[in-house]
Amino acid sequence: MKSTKKNRPLILVTNDDGITAPGITVLIEIMKELGDVVVVAPDKPQSGMGHAITINSTLRINKSNIHSVKAEYSCSGTPVDCVKIAVNKILHRKPDLCVSGINHGSNYSINVIYSGTMSAAVEGALESIPSIGFSLCDHALEADFGPSRFYVRQIAERILKDGLPEGVCLNVNIPDIPSEEIKGIKVCRQTKANWIEELDERIDPSGKQYFWLTGRFDNFEKGEKGTDVWALDNKYISIVPVQFDLTSYASIPKLKKLEK
Amino acid sequence: MKSTKKNRPLILVTNDDGITAPGITVLIEIMKELGDVVVVAPDKPQSGMGHAITINSTLRINKSNIHSVKAEYSCSGTPVDCVKIAVNKILHRKPDLCVSGINHGSNYSINVIYSGTMSAAVEGALESIPSIGFSLCDHALEADFGPSRFYVRQIAERILKDGLPEGVCLNVNIPDIPSEEIKGIKVCRQTKANWIEELDERIDPSGKQYFWLTGRFDNFEKGEKGTDVWALDNKYISIVPVQFDLTSYASIPKLKKLEK
Repeated sequence: MKSTKKNRPLILVTNDDGITAPGITVLIEIMKELGDVVVVAPDKPQSGMGHAITINSTLRINKSNIHSVKAEYSCSGTPVDCVKIAVNKILHRKPDLCVSGINHGSNYSINVIYSGTMSAAVEGALESIPSIGFSLCDHALEADFGPSRFYVRQIAERILKDGLPEGVCLNVNIPDIPSEEIKGIKVCRQTKANWIEELDERIDPSGKQYFWLTGRFDNFEKGEKGTDVWALDNKYISIVPVQFDLTSYASIPKLKKLEK
Repeated sequence: MKSTKKNRPLILVTNDDGITAPGITVLIEIMKELGDVVVVAPDKPQSGMGHAITINSTLRINKSNIHSVKAEYSCSGTPVDCVKIAVNKILHRKPDLCVSGINHGSNYSINVIYSGTMSAAVEGALESIPSIGFSLCDHALEADFGPSRFYVRQIAERILKDGLPEGVCLNVNIPDIPSEEIKGIKVCRQTKANWIEELDERIDPSGKQYFWLTGRFDNFEKGEKGTDVWALDNKYISIVPVQFDLTSYASIPKLKKLEK
């Protein structure tokens, strides 16, 4: 971190739980120690929005003053919309860091693909901004973000200093345990897993059927070292480098027969 | 394709343009030639929804009878919700194929990450169903899907017969040119590119500012052979194998220093 005001890093903060969520407040507090902070975050919860963008309806932003930062806006759109609007309408230069979270709830394993928190970080990476999504493995509103603080700051400082490989952002998950029990950090791969959906079927007051999407996490790699779930189960913070090139390069030669 | 009624493949069809879009009608017609078709598709346009799922509100499905298939439902949710509901509530066994589209508009390059069409196919792959997203490079409602028919059927038949590598689905894009000009199929990688956003700023009747998200596609690999945009520009159908493991394996060793 540079010491003079002029050279303070510019940090974009967003999330998917909405601008009033306790998790983003903690993240903003930490980032204010590291640089000038601009917040552009959803005006309502946007969990599970994945990489959705708003193209069939309009977008609005409103100035906000919750967190005493350089600039702050709530946005009617998704977490990815927030990053797009920040980069193209609000910020006068490319930020030095984009951080998303701290999410109330884990984004390990396949959850990364559904996560608004992580999609905002992926969008940051698409804009060539070093980007990190932070998630705490406790989805309660009153989750204790205390133990996260030291590590969130440490990781953000390192990335501000060293940058990230091209086309990559970080998916950081923090176990829901007291600070003194956290053993350190593990750089991991995404655990192979899926959700076994349990669509909770109900009847509304007019007698019509509706569903709540719910489910059970099914880990196909239980106890497998090197996976993010293993790291979290063993009291480590997990970091998975996430890429937006979705090409399965290994499959290209196998599929060449489709050209015939 | 098996010939007896009993052994006819079971094919799940969805899309992101909504159940009444011309593109899904064409896809259903083709799939009816190959097997028993079940349709679960959004009740309204869901373009740009990425891998969004509905977790903060309820989901509804309604029986539909537009396309004379084995079973057909419209769903209030996203394309990914449609696949989850189909697999967990509607289908009695795992389908032999999941197809999504035919999208009105291209999903090449980085568009894959924003695409509801492709996210439905990715969700199919997550459920271990051989899955394909089809897109025509013309976003008009009255787009001519005629030239697509031969290739969509050919690709679907091949995948029904041969399956797909584990953890992979196909992103098929069809150039908007007459059949006789299509040179064939190329198996490609996702082109490196991004959108230069142009947030179209307007004022509503009450004097308040709003935006439309729009932009310009910026290809970083113009003329690069092996990319999907190159294939389409050169009158080939592009097929990119797409994976849902987002781990950047190449970055893990470089980031190990974060563990210290």
